[in-house]
Amino acid sequence: MEKSTKKTQATNKKKLSRNQRRRAAKKRQAQKGQKAAPLKIYALGGLEEVGRNMTVFEYGSDIIIVDMGSQFPEEDMHGIDYIIPNIISLKGKEKNIRGVIITHGHLDHVGAAPLLLPKLGNPLVIAAPMTVALLKKQIENHQQKFTPRVLEVKSLKNPIQLGKFRVNFFQVTHSIKDSIGVIIETPFGNIVHPGDWRYDLDPVEGPKTDLNHLAKWQKKDRPLILMMESLGSTESGHQGSEKEVYNNIENIITQAKGRVIFGTFASMLERIGQVIQIAEKNGKKVAVDGFSMKANVEIGKQFGFIKAKKDTIIDIAKIHDYPKNKIIVICTGSQGEGRAVLRRIANGEHRFIKIGPDDTVVFSSSVIPGNERTIQGLKDSLYRQGANVIHKEIMDVHAGGHGKIEDIKLLLKEVKPTYLIPIYANHYLLREAAKVAQSVGIDKSKILIADNGQIIEFDKTGGRLTNQKVPTDYVFVDGLGVGDVSHVVLRDRQVMAADGMIVVIVTIDRKKGQLVQNPDLISRGFIYMKENKKLVEETRNQAKKIFKNMSKDGIDENYFKDKIRNEIGKFLYQKTQRRPMVLPVIIQV
Amino acid sequence: MEKSTKKTQATNKKKLSRNQRRRAAKKRQAQKGQKAAPLKIYALGGLEEVGRNMTVFEYGSDIIIVDMGSQFPEEDMHGIDYIIPNIISLKGKEKNIRGVIITHGHLDHVGAAPLLLPKLGNPLVIAAPMTVALLKKQIENHQQKFTPRVLEVKSLKNPIQLGKFRVNFFQVTHSIKDSIGVIIETPFGNIVHPGDWRYDLDPVEGPKTDLNHLAKWQKKDRPLILMMESLGSTESGHQGSEKEVYNNIENIITQAKGRVIFGTFASMLERIGQVIQIAEKNGKKVAVDGFSMKANVEIGKQFGFIKAKKDTIIDIAKIHDYPKNKIIVICTGSQGEGRAVLRRIANGEHRFIKIGPDDTVVFSSSVIPGNERTIQGLKDSLYRQGANVIHKEIMDVHAGGHGKIEDIKLLLKEVKPTYLIPIYANHYLLREAAKVAQSVGIDKSKILIADNGQIIEFDKTGGRLTNQKVPTDYVFVDGLGVGDVSHVVLRDRQVMAADGMIVVIVTIDRKKGQLVQNPDLISRGFIYMKENKKLVEETRNQAKKIFKNMSKDGIDENYFKDKIRNEIGKFLYQKTQRRPMVLPVIIQV
Repeated sequence: MEKSTKKTQATNKKKLSRNQRRRAAKKRQAQKGQKAAPLKIYALGGLEEVGRNMTVFEYGSDIIIVDMGSQFPEEDMHGIDYIIPNIISLKGKEKNIRGVIITHGHLDHVGAAPLLLPKLGNPLVIAAPMTVALLKKQIENHQQKFTPRVLEVKSLKNPIQLGKFRVNFFQVTHSIKDSIGVIIETPFGNIVHPGDWRYDLDPVEGPKTDLNHLAKWQKKDRPLILMMESLGSTESGHQGSEKEVYNNIENIITQAKGRVIFGTFASMLERIGQVIQIAEKNGKKVAVDGFSMKANVEIGKQFGFIKAKKDTIIDIAKIHDYPKNKIIVICTGSQGEGRAVLRRIANGEHRFIKIGPDDTVVFSSSVIPGNERTIQGLKDSLYRQGANVIHKEIMDVHAGGHGKIEDIKLLLKEVKPTYLIPIYANHYLLREAAKVAQSVGIDKSKILIADNGQIIEFDKTGGRLTNQKVPTDYVFVDGLGVGDVSHVVLRDRQVMAADGMIVVIVTIDRKKGQLVQNPDLISRGFIYMKENKKLVEETRNQAKKIFKNMSKDGIDENYFKDKIRNEIGKFLYQKTQRRPMVLPVIIQV
Repeated sequence: MEKSTKKTQATNKKKLSRNQRRRAAKKRQAQKGQKAAPLKIYALGGLEEVGRNMTVFEYGSDIIIVDMGSQFPEEDMHGIDYIIPNIISLKGKEKNIRGVIITHGHLDHVGAAPLLLPKLGNPLVIAAPMTVALLKKQIENHQQKFTPRVLEVKSLKNPIQLGKFRVNFFQVTHSIKDSIGVIIETPFGNIVHPGDWRYDLDPVEGPKTDLNHLAKWQKKDRPLILMMESLGSTESGHQGSEKEVYNNIENIITQAKGRVIFGTFASMLERIGQVIQIAEKNGKKVAVDGFSMKANVEIGKQFGFIKAKKDTIIDIAKIHDYPKNKIIVICTGSQGEGRAVLRRIANGEHRFIKIGPDDTVVFSSSVIPGNERTIQGLKDSLYRQGANVIHKEIMDVHAGGHGKIEDIKLLLKEVKPTYLIPIYANHYLLREAAKVAQSVGIDKSKILIADNGQIIEFDKTGGRLTNQKVPTDYVFVDGLGVGDVSHVVLRDRQVMAADGMIVVIVTIDRKKGQLVQNPDLISRGFIYMKENKKLVEETRNQAKKIFKNMSKDGIDENYFKDKIRNEIGKFLYQKTQRRPMVLPVIIQV
């Protein structure tokens, strides 16, 4: 851009023909138009939480999107299955979406795609082969009927053009295979977006992570912008090496007196592959259990990330055909999830596995915040049954997928970005990432910490946060409903969860202006009515009293209902210090 | 006991007079009786959780109790305020309770006392002076009307006799002042019970923790039993030193550009006292905010644990009379609690404090499992407002109150118990404590890991776990109700929390055998009915269809209700994949 501007200025100094002047004016206007059309970057999620990651890049009439993830609900979002990004700001612009790049197959990056892609006019999805397979599996699980349009990134060498954006790819080390990062070439700068990333300076196999090559995107005329996932920004040191984890797991498997029950995330295909490898070295068999685990192992095999000899993997129903010390079970449930395999094993509800003192149970995963107490309960059950339980407090049997403070410093030194946009973590972690960046010399003014929906602009003068914001209100998924659980519904659930509810039914004879029968009460989650007959009777009497005090010239139903709600609510609070939801029903016959 | 037995045996060998023989027989019988009455130890809580700590020691007709704590509810215990120990096993034995010893003033040790003491016939409470003051405060907060009978442990040197038990006291280092441990002399052994404990090998003031003196209770004829709180049994190393914490806090306060908002537990009187001391050194003023914080600071001053010059502590309303860098606010809410001070500050709802970029907020407390996400959210808000937030991830501003693995080893080496009973933690932590004990040479057979309610017996042959169990089912406290929230009520809350409820009201003209009007539907927490008119209409039609298919020879209400529950439940699940609670109401007029 700068070059052509200079040219125009030079031209102006000469004497021009009318045509030349007209063309020059047109050009200036076009440039002015372009000036008024900066590159806009905004996140529909992922800047204030872990999850629902989705970043939009918009330039003129071209839009590209990176990631389309879902988020676990918070504790007070009762009954919500998960949360997806709000795409209201993209309504009417569907035709501008040139592509949706999914960096890897974790749910916080791909989990919303099955629901959002069809709503966005089924735009082109660009992802590595295994990520595409995981997306298709997700679409199937969601019983969505559309066929996604996909472009598989089979070679990292070939950039693709998406409208005015040119997108290049690079390999990223993370806790799931086939993770890719992108470098987006835009008129105002090159944007490096590794998605979730870590370094592994001592990998089990393959080369050490090196992101030095990213520095080459630093150009004289255009800043290099790094959008950096910052989940580990308060954790000191480097992320643990996979080699150490591998060695620990190998020791556990080699020394186990009986079975090894290995719980991990279904997406940890690399580690699952390693367990299978160690099993083979030790002449052991591996049974895979859990819906998503089985599906993912199939995908892992298909893409060569899991290699197993023909007879290594056996059916879970066959484990009793072998001595206990020859059996490894790889399964889901290391987060304590309700119906997952580990929970069923711990509860004694698993069809083929009863835990005994010879069994070793390994929790090879990090604890997702919010699951601490559930996991403690699960561990209690397993210890109680005598299992030898190994978790992160006992031994390093898991390394996380995210760069820690020293990794962040290394990344910043290797990439040397002009601008830093910390992303994909709680707000406070973005702030801490900024502190780390400042400690290695990145200027505070070049670190842009945005809120969800807040538009970051880049033009030829550089980048900045704006005051513009697109909506990012939660969209809740509950059963088949997407976005139909409103804050009203959620608030009602919260009230009923805390103190239950009571329905007060008053049947009135319209003509006589009197009650047909004693008011009916139905209550759930408040008190056990059978054991509180006195309170029930007093509440009925309250309702009768309220009716008696009403005007006899016809009943104003709304007024009557308000009275019941308020006065019975107050009465019950005074008696119990609970605030059940009071629901009045007036039936006039 | 052993001595007198030997004597009797010796006597038997001699030729005896009839009187002598009669006396000897009587003695043998008495001894047989004693043999059949072992010492029983059982916990009514605290062996499978953190909280509701309560241990019962029973010998013949003498009972003493150590601690009487409450527990935070689990996530799925909607609306429950807290949980208290189940005392059904003590019913009828109230008169045998010789004393209730409270080791210190934390809620998991004293929190159930306001509700349980009156139900147990108001037995004598024995505790250190400040613990007594905290108990009285709790009784006041619970609006309980009884006056507890208390014996203040003013000197640790004087043992007390409680029935056949003789109880000795010793000082314990923990995160609250006036913590005491007990040595209970029983016929079958001396029991050391330190309550919650830690070592501080580098305290801010006073001597280093030394529990070597406990070894003297090891007697030749009686085993020494250690009941060891084991919360830190998976944490490596020693618990952090308070001196280091003190130095870090001093640096923060000295260097703060503006106000320091210091959030901690209200019970951390020692640290609060230190903050006040540092404030005075730096010529700063301290405002104390939060109901329990203010109450506890008063108690701390009264007992000399908090020393403040006359004009150091100022009213929170006066903070704007001083420059910002002269102000320290000590407050509650470091766990993210809903209405506590830090949350109100973060939400911008505090009357006197609006957070700005010069403010420093310190989270000086551990994170109670289950509160992680809430605290993250609180930190997000504070960082967003520009505060410099300091928490354990950034700097050591808190040392816990519990011994870690190396402390446990040190304790075991100093005390040299014959028997170890790990207590006051999740089951898996008790198991891990046992592993640590075995690593320093304690025999596995001498480590007794019991469940809640499981009776541990000691007699002259030693100690063992029995198969006898007293009930320890949860007793829920919700508002004014103690134990009246049953599992039925709780299950209903869980169902309504997840998917809401729908009331289906069918009004029937008894004589005509037909509906008076269209069935009424009331729904909360399920779907927003105004936006789902079609589903509402279809549901009404379902109800009408069910009615139409009923026998016309009078309505069997229960059958009709079952039909509505099942069929409408099924219909709604099919349409929404949600399972609201369906509540049928039949009104016949």
